[in-house]
Amino acid sequence: MSHNTFGHLFRVTTFGESHGPAIGCVIDGCPPGLAIAPGDFTRDLQRRATGRSRHTSQRREADSIEILSGVFEGVTTGTPIALLIRNTDARSRDYDDLARVFRPGHADFTYDRKYGIRDHRGGGRSSARETTMRVAAGVVARKYLSERFGIRVRGHVSQIGELRPTRFDSDAAEGNPFFWPDPDMVPALETYMDSLRKSGDSIGARVDVVAEGVPAGWGAPLYGKLDAELASALMGINAVKGVEIGDGFAVAAQRGSDHRDAIGPEGFASNHAGGILGGISSGQAITCSMALKPTSSLRLPVQSVDRDNAPVTVEVKGRHDPCVGIRAVPIAEAMVALVLLDQYLRHRAQCGGP
Amino acid sequence: MSHNTFGHLFRVTTFGESHGPAIGCVIDGCPPGLAIAPGDFTRDLQRRATGRSRHTSQRREADSIEILSGVFEGVTTGTPIALLIRNTDARSRDYDDLARVFRPGHADFTYDRKYGIRDHRGGGRSSARETTMRVAAGVVARKYLSERFGIRVRGHVSQIGELRPTRFDSDAAEGNPFFWPDPDMVPALETYMDSLRKSGDSIGARVDVVAEGVPAGWGAPLYGKLDAELASALMGINAVKGVEIGDGFAVAAQRGSDHRDAIGPEGFASNHAGGILGGISSGQAITCSMALKPTSSLRLPVQSVDRDNAPVTVEVKGRHDPCVGIRAVPIAEAMVALVLLDQYLRHRAQCGGP
Amino acid sequence: MSHNTFGHLFRVTTFGESHGPAIGCVIDGCPPGLAIAPGDFTRDLQRRATGRSRHTSQRREADSIEILSGVFEGVTTGTPIALLIRNTDARSRDYDDLARVFRPGHADFTYDRKYGIRDHRGGGRSSARETTMRVAAGVVARKYLSERFGIRVRGHVSQIGELRPTRFDSDAAEGNPFFWPDPDMVPALETYMDSLRKSGDSIGARVDVVAEGVPAGWGAPLYGKLDAELASALMGINAVKGVEIGDGFAVAAQRGSDHRDAIGPEGFASNHAGGILGGISSGQAITCSMALKPTSSLRLPVQSVDRDNAPVTVEVKGRHDPCVGIRAVPIAEAMVALVLLDQYLRHRAQCGGP
Amino acid sequence: MSHNTFGHLFRVTTFGESHGPAIGCVIDGCPPGLAIAPGDFTRDLQRRATGRSRHTSQRREADSIEILSGVFEGVTTGTPIALLIRNTDARSRDYDDLARVFRPGHADFTYDRKYGIRDHRGGGRSSARETTMRVAAGVVARKYLSERFGIRVRGHVSQIGELRPTRFDSDAAEGNPFFWPDPDMVPALETYMDSLRKSGDSIGARVDVVAEGVPAGWGAPLYGKLDAELASALMGINAVKGVEIGDGFAVAAQRGSDHRDAIGPEGFASNHAGGILGGISSGQAITCSMALKPTSSLRLPVQSVDRDNAPVTVEVKGRHDPCVGIRAVPIAEAMVALVLLDQYLRHRAQCGGP
Repeated sequence: MSHNTFGHLFRVTTFGESHGPAIGCVIDGCPPGLAIAPGDFTRDLQRRATGRSRHTSQRREADSIEILSGVFEGVTTGTPIALLIRNTDARSRDYDDLARVFRPGHADFTYDRKYGIRDHRGGGRSSARETTMRVAAGVVARKYLSERFGIRVRGHVSQIGELRPTRFDSDAAEGNPFFWPDPDMVPALETYMDSLRKSGDSIGARVDVVAEGVPAGWGAPLYGKLDAELASALMGINAVKGVEIGDGFAVAAQRGSDHRDAIGPEGFASNHAGGILGGISSGQAITCSMALKPTSSLRLPVQSVDRDNAPVTVEVKGRHDPCVGIRAVPIAEAMVALVLLDQYLRHRAQCGGP
Repeated sequence: MSHNTFGHLFRVTTFGESHGPAIGCVIDGCPPGLAIAPGDFTRDLQRRATGRSRHTSQRREADSIEILSGVFEGVTTGTPIALLIRNTDARSRDYDDLARVFRPGHADFTYDRKYGIRDHRGGGRSSARETTMRVAAGVVARKYLSERFGIRVRGHVSQIGELRPTRFDSDAAEGNPFFWPDPDMVPALETYMDSLRKSGDSIGARVDVVAEGVPAGWGAPLYGKLDAELASALMGINAVKGVEIGDGFAVAAQRGSDHRDAIGPEGFASNHAGGILGGISSGQAITCSMALKPTSSLRLPVQSVDRDNAPVTVEVKGRHDPCVGIRAVPIAEAMVALVLLDQYLRHRAQCGGP
Repeated sequence: MSHNTFGHLFRVTTFGESHGPAIGCVIDGCPPGLAIAPGDFTRDLQRRATGRSRHTSQRREADSIEILSGVFEGVTTGTPIALLIRNTDARSRDYDDLARVFRPGHADFTYDRKYGIRDHRGGGRSSARETTMRVAAGVVARKYLSERFGIRVRGHVSQIGELRPTRFDSDAAEGNPFFWPDPDMVPALETYMDSLRKSGDSIGARVDVVAEGVPAGWGAPLYGKLDAELASALMGINAVKGVEIGDGFAVAAQRGSDHRDAIGPEGFASNHAGGILGGISSGQAITCSMALKPTSSLRLPVQSVDRDNAPVTVEVKGRHDPCVGIRAVPIAEAMVALVLLDQYLRHRAQCGGP
Repeated sequence: MSHNTFGHLFRVTTFGESHGPAIGCVIDGCPPGLAIAPGDFTRDLQRRATGRSRHTSQRREADSIEILSGVFEGVTTGTPIALLIRNTDARSRDYDDLARVFRPGHADFTYDRKYGIRDHRGGGRSSARETTMRVAAGVVARKYLSERFGIRVRGHVSQIGELRPTRFDSDAAEGNPFFWPDPDMVPALETYMDSLRKSGDSIGARVDVVAEGVPAGWGAPLYGKLDAELASALMGINAVKGVEIGDGFAVAAQRGSDHRDAIGPEGFASNHAGGILGGISSGQAITCSMALKPTSSLRLPVQSVDRDNAPVTVEVKGRHDPCVGIRAVPIAEAMVALVLLDQYLRHRAQCGGP
């Protein structure tokens, strides 16, 4: 079962609500012998962090992480690694008048229908705050994958509204607040985002992730396929509504003679498949994409109902990203890394190997 | 773990290779008291069957299903339901010269890299033949969902190459060999497919599935979200490269004020979300789509290598669909039904209810 | 979840009722490259088989096993291995008058309370017939463990009623129909069993299993401990009411200075622990025992009720073992082997190694 | 997978080492709507606590528990409940000279062989300190079972060394530091324990647990049987070497005509089965027992080796219980409650019901 646990052999269980005392996770199944220190988490948590630029939400969390277990003298021991972050900048009062209201486009209504009770403050459990722990767990996975196999997992934003990059410089994506691979377009993006924020509206986005260096043979057919698990991992990120592997939806219009990647003694001639065939990695770069909806937390009013099904008009106060897709880049990278490490361990279990 | 098992509480374990003695599945966790007879499987197995029209593969399997266990005096008992179909029309000799060759676009190369050994005949385990059992298990799930909740899961093809329906009549989709919701276009599709088959090439497709009647509250946040599991279920179908829920990739260009579905006392005013919010069903229709690549099994030659990494030219004989997406409609419906029933049981476990 | 599936990485899913068309299992997660032929199953299935001697039930099943998948050219491929045995000697009519009656000491009452419906013929799903598949799956596990590590798993009966062996010759246990390690006592046992059968009564037994050659380091603390999983595996065998590891219940009266096994440069000085410390194998022989209740299927009458809660007197006809513990030896060996292989794969996943 | 997670639908993941910063757990799958406050944990944590009397270890932990998530306004919300206890009285220096030594009878050697690294301080992860979290999670399970079904789970010690109670007054067991059901024997036990402590030795024990009020129908045949899961749950407790259900090992000498529990219109006439038939609860009291070995942490010297396999003599300092079995009573109760609630949710998932 996997309600709040991700993964099968590298298992991450997260807990915590947006405005509760803390968020945290327990990583079980990590191979022993990996050096992990609190400082390892800093970079990716900052990449994900709120308050990174004026274009993202203004909630400022210290996000200082505490390692509670599983690491002894700086090295993983094979026992569960518990990570904890205290919530410090939660302004729960911003949410007081939402206690009985269902915000359209949010999980308020469905949590109420499912559980009959919910922590409404800041979205409670369904808040993007939880993704902090995905990123933290991803740091551990990425470190192992990098040290053991030289695997590199990197993402960028490839669409915001109607805007698409005109060129792809993946290194440049780290140099601007939009993870945008076309540095010349950054000023235009800033103008676009400022205008959007002023209007009180929000915008969707598309994020691409590439994993390079993944050996051939990872993936568990037929119901643990690598692509199926990547799809689940990415679709499970807040706001994601679509996932693609390789050429994605474009394949619907392709011919077989164009799509299939020819093979030569030096390897594949192309990578329409996105590095996965039959649910198993081919040794090529693994490429995937996801689409994120625009946040529904807007100053602009919208019709809804309260718990008594009485009509209300909702105007959301508080601090919200006009484009939640931007901060999703490190989250998507983390989820891809979690899937890869879990699949590696499953592959090693059945088939052995390095 | 879920390598050859799908689902958590309604669990389907499939087995069998395309040209082995038989394929089958074991359904564990089915609620007791459901009437099931061999005849219940007929319709959906025929919808999926090869040899259905000249536009699909010419392999003709009787696909007569045997219920080996779990059903007593016509009713499920709560014990495992084993289903078996003997393979009868396997022409393994068609594959003799492929024993040492990796067909581009297929799982030959990756199975070899993973396991070091593979049953090459007809694609072995990675053959679409396995999906027969997904459909069979789906029949059981659909029957339960229909009788208990009136849930109806229906799919259609919404794109073949560049062709898209100009109108949607979902009832009409059952009346033509393409599951095409626009009956006026069927003659054009037949011409297109005949021409494609003559050319020796294949084409991709897009399939939509809608589940109506799903109660609000199903779904297991955060790592068993209903949409994440649908994504996994659909992406795990052979040839699928993309999955969408609700508006899918279109959300990247949408504004929040447009995307969020307003709520009134009578319910939601629109359904951009595709019936899922925060990973939990909202009570609206659940809508999802997937893109299937064109089959790589073509008469047209392509470069590849054999197990010694020596260059070879591959021309695939045998019987293959020019558009595998067509037959994927009942498979996709089945996978959606399996996810829904599994999620219902998980919901009932934690939260009780009808 | 593990309702009808045993194991986590080496997973065995069984199906079938005593008097249904067939019983079978699907073994998922088997490492590729293991040679398996139908003949491999013969010996252990015969050891377990009914009709082996006049001291066990007279139901005679051919028990000829068919390999339906997962083995190609005599070698496992890493895909699911399905095994099937048709039921041929089921005399269902023997059970006609039990359709509405709850046999004391059997699962009739509890299956009815749980599912509201049951296949009453021959005990249905709860029949010991299902253990055939445990033994069959165990054959695969034992072969892998033997070839890879030289592990040998062997059991014997160490108590029948008040009778206990006066000496232990584990090789001798295979030479008599009681798996009894004291060959001199066999005539006395035969007399005892004949007298028991004549009386219409049955007797309990104790079975010991030893696994030699298990490397140190297998076991998954804290909730997948090797001893805990052995306990579950053995307690899950029909009729088992007690399980011990190492010294077992005798430890309640031991002093720490006696129990703890001293360690020297050449290894442990004793093995009170039964080869497991902290849930992990120590490299010593793993020793475990189980107690099996006497079968409740007797000619001797007993009071019970039917489905309407009306009093009835039950006298069980049909063919039944006076001491079900005897045939449990190969079943227990199989369960121990299944646990060991599963734990090995889990260990290799996390910690690597040979 | 269940390495550090217990349960399938009511899942408890524990973390933490004896002398690390904290121990904790995450409870996932708890039904919503259960009132839980920090005070609910007090009684059972004190019953388990070290320092309870002069007959148990002198480590004194405040064991003040913090609820980090999953409870909103005093009620469970259905999201993960994280519990945390900071370690405060860890005297790690007591263990400095054990860093490279393998204590006989402990997990030192096997953890080293498995992981190649271990936190040696106070036994690290394999310390009984972890059982605090089992008790804490058990409090939640017991509260649900009690409120919903009136189920009561109670344990007592039924053997210490050669001493056995001469009468059973289960209420009296709470009134003395030995959980001993025969109050007249308490002075004798105190003398016995004082003498044992003086000698520097330790003693084993036997613990019985009874669960009253469990409805018929809980349990998941065939590989999630209620008795098999109880066996796993109890055998997984530190120091346990044997587990019994109902009559346990005594059945090896019983006749079927004696063992089987007759049924009448008013219910069962006896309870040799211990409330479980075919792996499913019968509605009778569930009775189980376990044997705990004497602790190996003694002042008395013993031979061992260090990590270089050089001989050493081990004399364990620090604070240790002469009879660890005593404190195991609330732990065993907790594990039984965890199994019961998990099984209830699994039963409700498949079969519905209250």
